[in-house]
Amino acid sequence: MKEQFVRDLRPGERVLGFFLVHHKQLEPFRDRTRGEFLTLVLADCTGEILARVWEDAPALAETFEQGQVVKVAGEVEEYMGRWQVIVEKIRPAETDEYDPADMFPATERDVDEMLAVVRETVEGIEEPHLRALAARFFEDEEFVACFSRAPAARRIHHAYLGGLLEHTVEVVTLCKSLLEVYPQIHRDLLLTGALLHDVGKTAEFAYETDIDYSDEGRLLGHVVMSDRLVTNGIAAIPEFPDDLALRLRHMILSHHGRYEWGSPRRPQTLEAVALHHVENLDAQVNRFHRILAARRETDKPWTDYDTLLRRHLYAGRGEEELSVEEEGQAE
Amino acid sequence: MKEQFVRDLRPGERVLGFFLVHHKQLEPFRDRTRGEFLTLVLADCTGEILARVWEDAPALAETFEQGQVVKVAGEVEEYMGRWQVIVEKIRPAETDEYDPADMFPATERDVDEMLAVVRETVEGIEEPHLRALAARFFEDEEFVACFSRAPAARRIHHAYLGGLLEHTVEVVTLCKSLLEVYPQIHRDLLLTGALLHDVGKTAEFAYETDIDYSDEGRLLGHVVMSDRLVTNGIAAIPEFPDDLALRLRHMILSHHGRYEWGSPRRPQTLEAVALHHVENLDAQVNRFHRILAARRETDKPWTDYDTLLRRHLYAGRGEEELSVEEEGQAE
Amino acid sequence: MKEQFVRDLRPGERVLGFFLVHHKQLEPFRDRTRGEFLTLVLADCTGEILARVWEDAPALAETFEQGQVVKVAGEVEEYMGRWQVIVEKIRPAETDEYDPADMFPATERDVDEMLAVVRETVEGIEEPHLRALAARFFEDEEFVACFSRAPAARRIHHAYLGGLLEHTVEVVTLCKSLLEVYPQIHRDLLLTGALLHDVGKTAEFAYETDIDYSDEGRLLGHVVMSDRLVTNGIAAIPEFPDDLALRLRHMILSHHGRYEWGSPRRPQTLEAVALHHVENLDAQVNRFHRILAARRETDKPWTDYDTLLRRHLYAGRGEEELSVEEEGQAE
Amino acid sequence: MKEQFVRDLRPGERVLGFFLVHHKQLEPFRDRTRGEFLTLVLADCTGEILARVWEDAPALAETFEQGQVVKVAGEVEEYMGRWQVIVEKIRPAETDEYDPADMFPATERDVDEMLAVVRETVEGIEEPHLRALAARFFEDEEFVACFSRAPAARRIHHAYLGGLLEHTVEVVTLCKSLLEVYPQIHRDLLLTGALLHDVGKTAEFAYETDIDYSDEGRLLGHVVMSDRLVTNGIAAIPEFPDDLALRLRHMILSHHGRYEWGSPRRPQTLEAVALHHVENLDAQVNRFHRILAARRETDKPWTDYDTLLRRHLYAGRGEEELSVEEEGQAE
Amino acid sequence: MKEQFVRDLRPGERVLGFFLVHHKQLEPFRDRTRGEFLTLVLADCTGEILARVWEDAPALAETFEQGQVVKVAGEVEEYMGRWQVIVEKIRPAETDEYDPADMFPATERDVDEMLAVVRETVEGIEEPHLRALAARFFEDEEFVACFSRAPAARRIHHAYLGGLLEHTVEVVTLCKSLLEVYPQIHRDLLLTGALLHDVGKTAEFAYETDIDYSDEGRLLGHVVMSDRLVTNGIAAIPEFPDDLALRLRHMILSHHGRYEWGSPRRPQTLEAVALHHVENLDAQVNRFHRILAARRETDKPWTDYDTLLRRHLYAGRGEEELSVEEEGQAE
Amino acid sequence: MKEQFVRDLRPGERVLGFFLVHHKQLEPFRDRTRGEFLTLVLADCTGEILARVWEDAPALAETFEQGQVVKVAGEVEEYMGRWQVIVEKIRPAETDEYDPADMFPATERDVDEMLAVVRETVEGIEEPHLRALAARFFEDEEFVACFSRAPAARRIHHAYLGGLLEHTVEVVTLCKSLLEVYPQIHRDLLLTGALLHDVGKTAEFAYETDIDYSDEGRLLGHVVMSDRLVTNGIAAIPEFPDDLALRLRHMILSHHGRYEWGSPRRPQTLEAVALHHVENLDAQVNRFHRILAARRETDKPWTDYDTLLRRHLYAGRGEEELSVEEEGQAE
Repeated sequence: MKEQFVRDLRPGERVLGFFLVHHKQLEPFRDRTRGEFLTLVLADCTGEILARVWEDAPALAETFEQGQVVKVAGEVEEYMGRWQVIVEKIRPAETDEYDPADMFPATERDVDEMLAVVRETVEGIEEPHLRALAARFFEDEEFVACFSRAPAARRIHHAYLGGLLEHTVEVVTLCKSLLEVYPQIHRDLLLTGALLHDVGKTAEFAYETDIDYSDEGRLLGHVVMSDRLVTNGIAAIPEFPDDLALRLRHMILSHHGRYEWGSPRRPQTLEAVALHHVENLDAQVNRFHRILAARRETDKPWTDYDTLLRRHLYAGRGEEELSVEEEGQAE
Repeated sequence: MKEQFVRDLRPGERVLGFFLVHHKQLEPFRDRTRGEFLTLVLADCTGEILARVWEDAPALAETFEQGQVVKVAGEVEEYMGRWQVIVEKIRPAETDEYDPADMFPATERDVDEMLAVVRETVEGIEEPHLRALAARFFEDEEFVACFSRAPAARRIHHAYLGGLLEHTVEVVTLCKSLLEVYPQIHRDLLLTGALLHDVGKTAEFAYETDIDYSDEGRLLGHVVMSDRLVTNGIAAIPEFPDDLALRLRHMILSHHGRYEWGSPRRPQTLEAVALHHVENLDAQVNRFHRILAARRETDKPWTDYDTLLRRHLYAGRGEEELSVEEEGQAE
Repeated sequence: MKEQFVRDLRPGERVLGFFLVHHKQLEPFRDRTRGEFLTLVLADCTGEILARVWEDAPALAETFEQGQVVKVAGEVEEYMGRWQVIVEKIRPAETDEYDPADMFPATERDVDEMLAVVRETVEGIEEPHLRALAARFFEDEEFVACFSRAPAARRIHHAYLGGLLEHTVEVVTLCKSLLEVYPQIHRDLLLTGALLHDVGKTAEFAYETDIDYSDEGRLLGHVVMSDRLVTNGIAAIPEFPDDLALRLRHMILSHHGRYEWGSPRRPQTLEAVALHHVENLDAQVNRFHRILAARRETDKPWTDYDTLLRRHLYAGRGEEELSVEEEGQAE
Repeated sequence: MKEQFVRDLRPGERVLGFFLVHHKQLEPFRDRTRGEFLTLVLADCTGEILARVWEDAPALAETFEQGQVVKVAGEVEEYMGRWQVIVEKIRPAETDEYDPADMFPATERDVDEMLAVVRETVEGIEEPHLRALAARFFEDEEFVACFSRAPAARRIHHAYLGGLLEHTVEVVTLCKSLLEVYPQIHRDLLLTGALLHDVGKTAEFAYETDIDYSDEGRLLGHVVMSDRLVTNGIAAIPEFPDDLALRLRHMILSHHGRYEWGSPRRPQTLEAVALHHVENLDAQVNRFHRILAARRETDKPWTDYDTLLRRHLYAGRGEEELSVEEEGQAE
Repeated sequence: MKEQFVRDLRPGERVLGFFLVHHKQLEPFRDRTRGEFLTLVLADCTGEILARVWEDAPALAETFEQGQVVKVAGEVEEYMGRWQVIVEKIRPAETDEYDPADMFPATERDVDEMLAVVRETVEGIEEPHLRALAARFFEDEEFVACFSRAPAARRIHHAYLGGLLEHTVEVVTLCKSLLEVYPQIHRDLLLTGALLHDVGKTAEFAYETDIDYSDEGRLLGHVVMSDRLVTNGIAAIPEFPDDLALRLRHMILSHHGRYEWGSPRRPQTLEAVALHHVENLDAQVNRFHRILAARRETDKPWTDYDTLLRRHLYAGRGEEELSVEEEGQAE
Repeated sequence: MKEQFVRDLRPGERVLGFFLVHHKQLEPFRDRTRGEFLTLVLADCTGEILARVWEDAPALAETFEQGQVVKVAGEVEEYMGRWQVIVEKIRPAETDEYDPADMFPATERDVDEMLAVVRETVEGIEEPHLRALAARFFEDEEFVACFSRAPAARRIHHAYLGGLLEHTVEVVTLCKSLLEVYPQIHRDLLLTGALLHDVGKTAEFAYETDIDYSDEGRLLGHVVMSDRLVTNGIAAIPEFPDDLALRLRHMILSHHGRYEWGSPRRPQTLEAVALHHVENLDAQVNRFHRILAARRETDKPWTDYDTLLRRHLYAGRGEEELSVEEEGQAE
């Protein structure tokens, strides 16, 4: 287990531990007779920090790559109002020296508990073809490994390892509640759609060293990639009813809800419209929660202007601020 | 209790009962020497039917008004592929002769059960000012009478008597489920907002003889009307915290979510974004459900083109059609 | 070969021949003692005409279905400014009595010549995997039969039998011209994309008795359907290069160019942007040509207001009108 | 009266006077052995200037806050093409040492003259309830004090102290002219709406130390805040006619004209459409005037690209530039 | 002077007078042995009415054309709730028999008074080139004749003969008021732009028999047509300053304000933004006034749904309705 | 002929040659006792490079202007990862010392060959008035000189000297291909429109020292400027048919296709819709080509985010990248 996290480093402290190299660049000293130094951005699951290697930088720079994990010894100092690590020693880490989970921001929920919800939901599907289809995915260990680790987005919502699983479990949970309000919705179809709607995201993102789109993710998009995985799954199940297949594929292809959000179809069935709005509800609430949580540490009542939402968000002011974390947890 | 409903009338049957006059017009016979006949549209909670008075039409026409309930005797016949009532006798009904509830389309859920959910939710609010505020509304009998009867919309969703109560209960129910997924949301604030977000709709619509906007509804809109009712309520509760009042009013003013949907604000707090998306989810699913339910009686796989949604909806085809009603009810 | 076409029928003429029944409805006579008559819409590849059966209508109505071809004897008359066929005899046609090609509006270009262009283009592809892929489609007789007959759209452009082939050949032809202007474009990729971009339309439409969307067409859309056919084709070709597959699929998924036009992707490669704009150019010119051609017969300088284009189109005025047909044909 | 204004400071001059601190930050010297210096932004009603405190900065920094007025002694110098004040002495100012009016950009028009126009307009309203309503606002000294000082916007138009009063007077003036062109408009209603449409702006902005939105302004918006003030005013006037109240509130709620501009209603009466367009005319002309005036000092024919208007504005070129100021003043 | 106007015709009255033929169509009698009758739409400046010629219709139909003025003798009767003229005699009118002004809806303001305002405005322009330019138009009798008669639009605003002059005078009047509020605006430039901005409308519409677009109007649009007239005018004035010409043309080309309203430019100068907003203000107020005035005769508080404005307009209710006409006229 | 181009300069090399001064600014040394140095941006047709004059900068700075060509002697060095020219000598160049063509980015195609295509196209127009009109432009040497040199845009496509000619020739070429597919299009009209649609661009841009809009370009726009040049040309040709003139002007005024793209008209004829889509096809393919070509030198598979296209473009990955340049040139 990692002992020092980026979030906790303070000026004056000694540093000794493993970090992921997000950025690496040689720069000349202002006094050029001194040659070059090395500027790094070191990261772990809690954030990023600037670092400098003053001595022997060109040689050291050749021993590791951006995107690799390194072991670092040094000290934190403050310069021009910013904290940075002055690196004394640095070397590539062996794979068994650190826990990869320490390197990336990840879901705070328990992965096994979430997988249990998924499996229980699969088992609760009564229509045999739909259950068989869902089982093909969630009984495939390799798929489950990917699915448990993938983020749900690059930036907007659930943009951390395990985010896809977390989002899926939340959508499934909300769908179950909706089914109680609207018994007219086809239960098995909605739950199967909820479980499978984003399976293409396992391949949409590359998340070895940073969360970004894969080529396939950019050129095809997860909506079509999910549809392909599901269609291949359907083809492998004998006598899967045509109408059911059509309705399920339609749910996946229309779950973004609007053309302008990259949806090749718009919802035309009760289950498709339900999935779209539940999915969007979960994504938007997560998005606001993340933005507000990030701000709370700064203690300002308003967040900075969010250029995508085109607004400031409000967290509350001074002693009047709602102690929502505590209250919430008391639930 | 009414014995004959419009939905059940068939050619050849005798008609004897009470109906609401939606439309009334004198027209000349083609052979003008015969004078004028009377064309009516008769309605009850199950639908509308055309009717004609051939004899003594001008005199009879003066005995009742459009928007009134009348007692009718006559017979159903088919003409040019359409069914119509040939009226033999017609007279205005006394108020105690019929049950107004039979005249309008209304929620199919149990009003008392729904009110019980509302009251239980009010009692479950822990923050005393918010609970007092909600109680001011739902312990006021006159308000509750209006609230239980009002529709939630003129056309799009929950557009029937009791629709406002039904919509509110559904939103509250879904919010409770969301609170389990996101304990960071302020429970009391979200539930109070869910209960009160549409209270202005009690005055936005006129629904004596048909569901339509009131003048106030058209010129001010229910968002501002709800805000005013809530603000007046807040003013009546001693020491209502300012920040809480601001946050609650913001939820009401932003619950339509987008400027282009007539929202004077867009959500800027976690509770506001949650309320907007839950409310929209419920409205859209109800809307699709109504359109599809109306179509199912016709047995066609596709609905007619919906000019507001700009698409056809799909209900399913032949024997493959999903028996969702039954399955749903088995829940 | 059909001898009488709807376009040529005139009041006073005798009618004897085969027509497709687009619409069939029994209606009561105004004098109801006379029972019912039958109103039909008869059609062939040149247009539609109203028809009436006055005698023995209920019995005759049971002998054929809407969407079937019938043999009709009767006479054309004018009534209230409209022409209609007074049917004397009518019976279902045997399949070998008429040429189905006479029944539907169809491309005016030579199908075999167009197929020759397609085949020549396939053979001219040098990259072996792309050529093999294109050949899989265009050497499959069953596919070619569908492809030669399918329309390219329901209403907007090339909305007639053979329209898909015609559109494809035009797009291929324009792409070849573009390749001369921009040699930087990857020739084989562009031409393969041009040939295959709309293959899903073979299943998007039902066109047995009228051109309309199939269920699959409505719920999935031809963009995703084309992608699936192409992806399956790629999977069947050994060692198809990944990058090439990705680029080709991207071209198909982005060829509508804009999200709001139902495109799940927007062009991100040179070949994709080229295909999108060539495809759109051909579709729009065909659309304008069809609208203007339909109007020219009426001799008015302006077409009626087109609700989709939201404008009137101008064909030219009086003797000044450009004799474009002739000049064009002189080419 | 302030003697030195930011706009007039030139390199080499001595500085001695009062300025508002817009920004305050301690920064380390590059040679860190020297500790920290203080960077300030000093402002008054004519603009902002950078300032530095080299000596004893950490101690001095604790004697005053951002947003406070200070007395400064020092000298202006030029460094890297930019002018800055080298501060020798600095201390917080007493409230009676300076005139607050010198600290903020403010309307250039005479406040008393503008208030006289407002009062004369109030007195000219003939309908007694409307006159009583307007009088409630403009005979309330506290309200008038706020109203005379508030800006009309944060950035776009009339974004300076007194801007709200100036904007209101201009709208009233233009409305009077419109009433001569369109005598069908209800004079008293239009003028009352013009006077009261933006009263909520007195609380929408905080403008003690900088012009910014208040929490209430951000979460509720001035449209709803104005409506609430007016509705409360109406409630205090006996027998205010319902229809008149409805029309007036509608004017306020719809004066932004379009949903996408945050208007909860769109104009549905003659007076509402008139108010919206007059208000918009005044705001846009003021906006262009301010952008062009700011540019004129630089002598370039084109302004920089305005990211909100998404265009450059044109002021004219060289000797051909229109001497509009002078001509205008000659009026 | 015409004695009978369409607006005043009532069932039972004799008709004798001159009307414009808006529509003319021969139709067969239901009993076809009776041959054909003639359906007409007759119009004058106050409205339209249906008319029928039962006797000798085919022969009479050849004696006049749609778009011509005819003399009619007959009687008004009511049929199926609609009033129609039963024509007994009808013949083409001689040009000297009627006053063309009686045939078309026209401005209710005094044309000579309005022209006096225009001329006075021209004379008040001090910059000699601008005055010379304006004078070229308004001292040209032929142009003034067209300009005084042209409508300002086909449907939306000032859509009647003289509407262009009326609109121009109103824009000029409002501009003068704006110049008092904003002396920074270049007076002569704004007034010249106000006078000339729509001169192309003299050729954009055909208004001999109905107000419709000319071919040129549809294919080029009045913005470009106005620019061409003004540019030709400028070319004819010696030493017209280049910068002034550019600014004036820019005002004309940008006066629609937004690309989506067909404006090839958007305002980039103070005068252009002022002209655009004044012009729009006048057009919108006129539009609302016309819609509401048309409704008032029907006595309903709400107008029908306006499909272009996408809303209902409110005129007021019962005795509470504002007597704006009278009050207005008392001004 | 220039011997050293910016693109080829490398650290350590001597510089001696002619460059255009894009930017010129005096800056103080950090050690202010040393006075000021001069920062320049030097450019030629292949790109830009930073340059510094350390010695005698204030005096030298007065000998030349931004936008002028200078002769420079010095040396390239690398500083902080960026290359810059340390200038030793610098003086204004005489006009006959350098070839202006070396100073600006320019088309890579042969100007004479392109002009030959234009002339051949003009001669191939059969309709005599259209041919005369086109000839007026392309037989006017002064116009041809401008037309051959002008860019087609400031940034988006063909944004280099000769870009207008290149774009025109490409549009003409693609139109000829389209005419083979659609013989119904009026050949002479389409080709004349293609040749003349952008002639106003000769005055829309200033391109002496950098490609930017002229005042006229910004205030009037090339669409209206092209229309004016063409209309003046038409006026000079005797008996030019009215309908032909109208159709040609319509093509020019509508060739941007959509109001939101600054088009005062939208296509309403077959020739106009064809021109718009061919023009857009060429512009977009050129745009993508330029963005991708610029990126290829960096060897990354994806371009940076393009803020106007709002996407990344894909060029291909590693060894799999398509060798399109070579293949293309092999054509």
